[in-house]
Amino acid sequence: MAYIDLGLDETRHPGITGLLAYRRETGRALEALADALLVAPNSLSRGERELIAAHVSGLNECTFCRNSHSAFAAAQLDGGMPLVEQVRADPAGAPVSPKLRALLRIAGAVQNDGRSVTPELVDAARAEGATDTEVHDTVLIAAAFCMFNRYVDGLGTLAPGEPGAYEASVPFVVAHGYSSEG
Amino acid sequence: MAYIDLGLDETRHPGITGLLAYRRETGRALEALADALLVAPNSLSRGERELIAAHVSGLNECTFCRNSHSAFAAAQLDGGMPLVEQVRADPAGAPVSPKLRALLRIAGAVQNDGRSVTPELVDAARAEGATDTEVHDTVLIAAAFCMFNRYVDGLGTLAPGEPGAYEASVPFVVAHGYSSEG
Repeated sequence: MAYIDLGLDETRHPGITGLLAYRRETGRALEALADALLVAPNSLSRGERELIAAHVSGLNECTFCRNSHSAFAAAQLDGGMPLVEQVRADPAGAPVSPKLRALLRIAGAVQNDGRSVTPELVDAARAEGATDTEVHDTVLIAAAFCMFNRYVDGLGTLAPGEPGAYEASVPFVVAHGYSSEG
Repeated sequence: MAYIDLGLDETRHPGITGLLAYRRETGRALEALADALLVAPNSLSRGERELIAAHVSGLNECTFCRNSHSAFAAAQLDGGMPLVEQVRADPAGAPVSPKLRALLRIAGAVQNDGRSVTPELVDAARAEGATDTEVHDTVLIAAAFCMFNRYVDGLGTLAPGEPGAYEASVPFVVAHGYSSEG
């Protein structure tokens, strides 16, 4: 259970959901950021953006975010959960588009340290057709999950063990995004 | 200069300021988050919160954010820049309150990895008088700067070399916060 008293039943509000409810002043801004990055119209599909989020959360070993965004990605990608698991295990070898593969490399560099992103990584993504906005959004999605992951784990929130707990959120998030949650 | 074309003069909009202007959809959410964490009324002073931001940005070696938030902290703390520099060099030994020292330890743990925050670190802060909200806000400020730092460096934005470039922003930020910037 969380290191602070969230004033709610964490089994019903696990991971970040309890934190968003606990402190609405920051919760509203975080939900708006998630919607702008992961839900709003974009030349990267919602599934592709959730895949970047799941990949970074996996690298940060944040159980709640990894499982949540893997479920959201799987629900919105033709390859489903097998593809998500392939990407998380081997992003360079998984059967995604060359552009998405290049963007996943950038996201992995951001997870390590912002300075790990090189002009060469950006040029490689551009050579596969990535636009400046796509590069921007990939860097910010990856950076944002370095925040969300630390927020969730740094306050010791509950991460359910059973996959069903994550899949249960999929219909709501796919239909409404993040802003009405919590 | 940035890895993507921000469509503006980076010498006038360095670091994150050019990014906030480039993509207002995410910029608005990021500014709202910074205002909620660093500017809104809080039992931690604005100077104390900026000090946490400067400390984390120093650990992430993000020149633009470290210099900006060091200047904002120095302007709002009695000890000024000498205190900020002491904290960045030796957070455990610098002359800040025992509560702030304990919160800086939590922030340093978050910078490393969310899972580095232990119940013992939280209990130590609580023993010095930290509230649950102060622990929450410290974790989220530190996590947020792990995002801002990666965003700024991951896109290769300009970090001015001269201290005056950072001090020039102080009056605006102290008076208005972050939301009207950019």
